[in-house]
Amino acid sequence: MRYELYYWSGIQGRGEFVRLALEEASVDYLDAARTEGGDMKMMRLMKSERAHPSFAPPFLKAGSLLIGQTANILLFLGERHGLAPKSNAGRFWTHQLQLTIADLIAEVHDSHHPIAGSLYYEDQKAEAARRTKYLRDERLPKYLGYFDRLLATGNGGWLVGNRVTYADLSLFQAVEGLRFAFPKTMRELERRCPQLSRHSARVGGRQRIAAYLGSDRRLPFTNEDLFRHRSELDS
Amino acid sequence: MRYELYYWSGIQGRGEFVRLALEEASVDYLDAARTEGGDMKMMRLMKSERAHPSFAPPFLKAGSLLIGQTANILLFLGERHGLAPKSNAGRFWTHQLQLTIADLIAEVHDSHHPIAGSLYYEDQKAEAARRTKYLRDERLPKYLGYFDRLLATGNGGWLVGNRVTYADLSLFQAVEGLRFAFPKTMRELERRCPQLSRHSARVGGRQRIAAYLGSDRRLPFTNEDLFRHRSELDS
Repeated sequence: MRYELYYWSGIQGRGEFVRLALEEASVDYLDAARTEGGDMKMMRLMKSERAHPSFAPPFLKAGSLLIGQTANILLFLGERHGLAPKSNAGRFWTHQLQLTIADLIAEVHDSHHPIAGSLYYEDQKAEAARRTKYLRDERLPKYLGYFDRLLATGNGGWLVGNRVTYADLSLFQAVEGLRFAFPKTMRELERRCPQLSRHSARVGGRQRIAAYLGSDRRLPFTNEDLFRHRSELDS
Repeated sequence: MRYELYYWSGIQGRGEFVRLALEEASVDYLDAARTEGGDMKMMRLMKSERAHPSFAPPFLKAGSLLIGQTANILLFLGERHGLAPKSNAGRFWTHQLQLTIADLIAEVHDSHHPIAGSLYYEDQKAEAARRTKYLRDERLPKYLGYFDRLLATGNGGWLVGNRVTYADLSLFQAVEGLRFAFPKTMRELERRCPQLSRHSARVGGRQRIAAYLGSDRRLPFTNEDLFRHRSELDS
């Protein structure tokens, strides 16, 4: 069976967290909007679905299953492809970490769109500057310090036990995105979070992940995406 | 086994979504911070936990398991107490809806705190007014319309199949909270979403939920909570 991932064709966005899991699991998947019919077809499909319509992309077609919400898709892929432990303790802990990463991502998004997603950045620039100061000074240190401590406590180099999980892949993507968006801030934060840098290198160096990152399936970071680099927001 | 729920003692907040599930499941639980040692003891426990520390309350102690993140706790309780279907299609769909409700809740919170959770409302009042206008005009109609359509499509009166799930309880709490925060806006929106009002009445009328809502275990809505009523934000 071939999975079909539906996500906006031009950005990494939240779809990228799913892509990394699909790549690490080495399963056959179609990145549907990028290869067949584009975003319009995806949105028509989403809006015409009656049984399990998603509120927004990404969503994954897996045979007769249609699954939306990034963390929920990862929960599914984690169970099915060994990207999370099977024990109750392990699988709920992995999902808890994923949901915390999702909270971080939402805060990062809202730092450049603190008023409305439907407005241009330029129309909420003053508010973005004010919000991003708190993101840099309070929230990023809190989130990254949390994950750094978890990695320091574990002894396998991974977030959960001694095997890679979907939460590791997502943390990698979050750190990569933050490096793109806030290079100056991240240089300082990574000095204080050495485990985090090591963890990112370890994930990025995995064979399948490295192959994916070097392929044309991996879209670049851009300023029209979840993580945006605006120098005025990084100092 | 008695569950121990850890959440801020003075507010409904995100803990309330867990409380509603515990009450509907009719299981023995201790609302720990409200009954033993308060918020300080909870935070000491959270910070001293080495294996599975939460980033923030709520978290649930269930025997040897410690589970954080609201939607994750509900995933656990749903499996264990029949508050979600057992089939893959049903359990991922229920969780998808819960995560969409979580997104709505986060947007509602940020409408009164668009700059930083660490600042007073009064220090971000102008930004809150601007953000809340988009919440009222764009986001609430989109979210509530989505759930109203789902309820209209189903035929059991519940979000998933013909039995109550944790997502129904959470949607109820979201609608109750929105009625408290934005009574004027909600009068208009509920006119356009008749299924949603019916659904809320159905959940609120369930025997165990009604008993809980009438008990002193249910904290009132206040302006120091997730849902806040500020008349200047409701028109």
